[in-house]
Amino acid sequence: MITALGGGVGAAKFLSGLIKLNLNEKINIIVNTADDITVGGLRISPDIDTIIYTLSGNVNTDRKWGLEGDTFNCLAALSRFGIYGWFNLGDKDLATHLYRTHLRSLGYTYTQITSKIAKSYGLDDLNILPMSDTDVETWISTNKGEMHFQEYLVKEKMLPEVKSVYIKGIENAKASEQVIDSILSANTIILCPSNPIISIGPILKVAGVRDAIKKSKAKKIAISPLVGGVPLKGPADKLMRAEGLEVSSTQVAKLYQDFIDEMIIDIKDKSEAKRIEKLGIKTTILDTVMKNEADSINLAQKILKT
Amino acid sequence: MITALGGGVGAAKFLSGLIKLNLNEKINIIVNTADDITVGGLRISPDIDTIIYTLSGNVNTDRKWGLEGDTFNCLAALSRFGIYGWFNLGDKDLATHLYRTHLRSLGYTYTQITSKIAKSYGLDDLNILPMSDTDVETWISTNKGEMHFQEYLVKEKMLPEVKSVYIKGIENAKASEQVIDSILSANTIILCPSNPIISIGPILKVAGVRDAIKKSKAKKIAISPLVGGVPLKGPADKLMRAEGLEVSSTQVAKLYQDFIDEMIIDIKDKSEAKRIEKLGIKTTILDTVMKNEADSINLAQKILKT
Repeated sequence: MITALGGGVGAAKFLSGLIKLNLNEKINIIVNTADDITVGGLRISPDIDTIIYTLSGNVNTDRKWGLEGDTFNCLAALSRFGIYGWFNLGDKDLATHLYRTHLRSLGYTYTQITSKIAKSYGLDDLNILPMSDTDVETWISTNKGEMHFQEYLVKEKMLPEVKSVYIKGIENAKASEQVIDSILSANTIILCPSNPIISIGPILKVAGVRDAIKKSKAKKIAISPLVGGVPLKGPADKLMRAEGLEVSSTQVAKLYQDFIDEMIIDIKDKSEAKRIEKLGIKTTILDTVMKNEADSINLAQKILKT
Repeated sequence: MITALGGGVGAAKFLSGLIKLNLNEKINIIVNTADDITVGGLRISPDIDTIIYTLSGNVNTDRKWGLEGDTFNCLAALSRFGIYGWFNLGDKDLATHLYRTHLRSLGYTYTQITSKIAKSYGLDDLNILPMSDTDVETWISTNKGEMHFQEYLVKEKMLPEVKSVYIKGIENAKASEQVIDSILSANTIILCPSNPIISIGPILKVAGVRDAIKKSKAKKIAISPLVGGVPLKGPADKLMRAEGLEVSSTQVAKLYQDFIDEMIIDIKDKSEAKRIEKLGIKTTILDTVMKNEADSINLAQKILKT
């Protein structure tokens, strides 16, 4: 059994390779839900949706998020009211948010809801788990004020200066039984190449998760999301800096130092290998840039062989 | 000042004629909200939206509801999840529901929300008022079980046998100050050709409305929604029958007998004029079928001249 932890696009790309290996092992994916947001009463889980859309082959391959062939007529109509114009809200994508919100109003947990959505997208064999059934939201304090992470990312295009990051509600978030089981029963635990502050970070902060990973007898591997010292996408560098951290794969390794056995870093960061090895972590240098599915498959295969 | 009470399509058609008369009088429209429904967390007000879309010239002219040029991609995507496939949910229309739900979550009343939506649609001069700021929902008891009125209307296409109609929450619904003011200050009060059971009925049941109408010194005119003894659209006949009422313009007049001065009936129902006159209500026979805007203008003009 393989259990992966991850956030959005980086994780989705890696996992799309992993599942194509057709291993005879169950795959669990614990997904960050800290960048979830409520828009006009609809609960939106961007990372969950990106994973489901990507792994089911429905993601828009240019944008890497949202659905292929989607339209944005609702979003355009929202401009009349001057709200949410900045948000990425596809018309077909909206159906997922309506379904999630509908099930939630009936009392289903996020774990149950995610399972239902994944099954509706034909992902019967995968066990996609939200990190928690509790509402958690990432907020960013910037020179332009406090804002939800989605607002910082999408509306403000990561331009404001980040002062600090805080995960609202994380102190109340508990891990579900399924999350803990998937960690304790795994042979291999993989931290996908996702943002260590706002994707992997929140998962590890959910009560019970970090302890379960430490307790698990699995081999624990982390893939650095940095390539040449910078993230391929997203604000990992800005957020690490705001947290007073060095922006490097060595620093990423330090964040997981208490539990990982192995760190995967990109060939562009090979000079860091020695520093990471000094932390007592086996370090493997690979080409971690996934430009297409073949790259993803190749990377997953190599990581499982190390 | 003219104050009209109405529901959906019939009212919208009549009012589109009334506003084109460009009278030097303020027009208030008190709209039924008893057929409102919550779909996937979104609060939908079909009658309010039909009135706003029609009067702003944005309604789909074939269907008479929803927006011109709308798409239904979200609705199609919902079929994957097996929910709400029956509902009329246009992509552009969804923006209105998102806006309403968003404002509601911020604490705005339906009165304030409706005013904002109407203004966003350029209807600055009209005073469109929801009948109440309280949630009210019409439910229908049928041989296929209990269902929301929208489910009966749209999903079940009015086919189940209606046993009874009940307006959930109507006992708690109060009229807003604006509704009462618009009634007390009116020179003319017009009951649009709307369903007496589920459109005009709920408005009259909102605490304070019927008393205010009785107290108002306005001339009070009701337009029968029946033509040749049947409704042009919708289930008025079925619901009247379920309530043990005769399906006739005379019966409609009886429902308003305690306050109306005049009843407008269609030429096809002219034989009923004498029965209605016997109730002490002046009765005017007009062609009430509005096939186009010219018909609507003509009808409005004649009614104001009677």
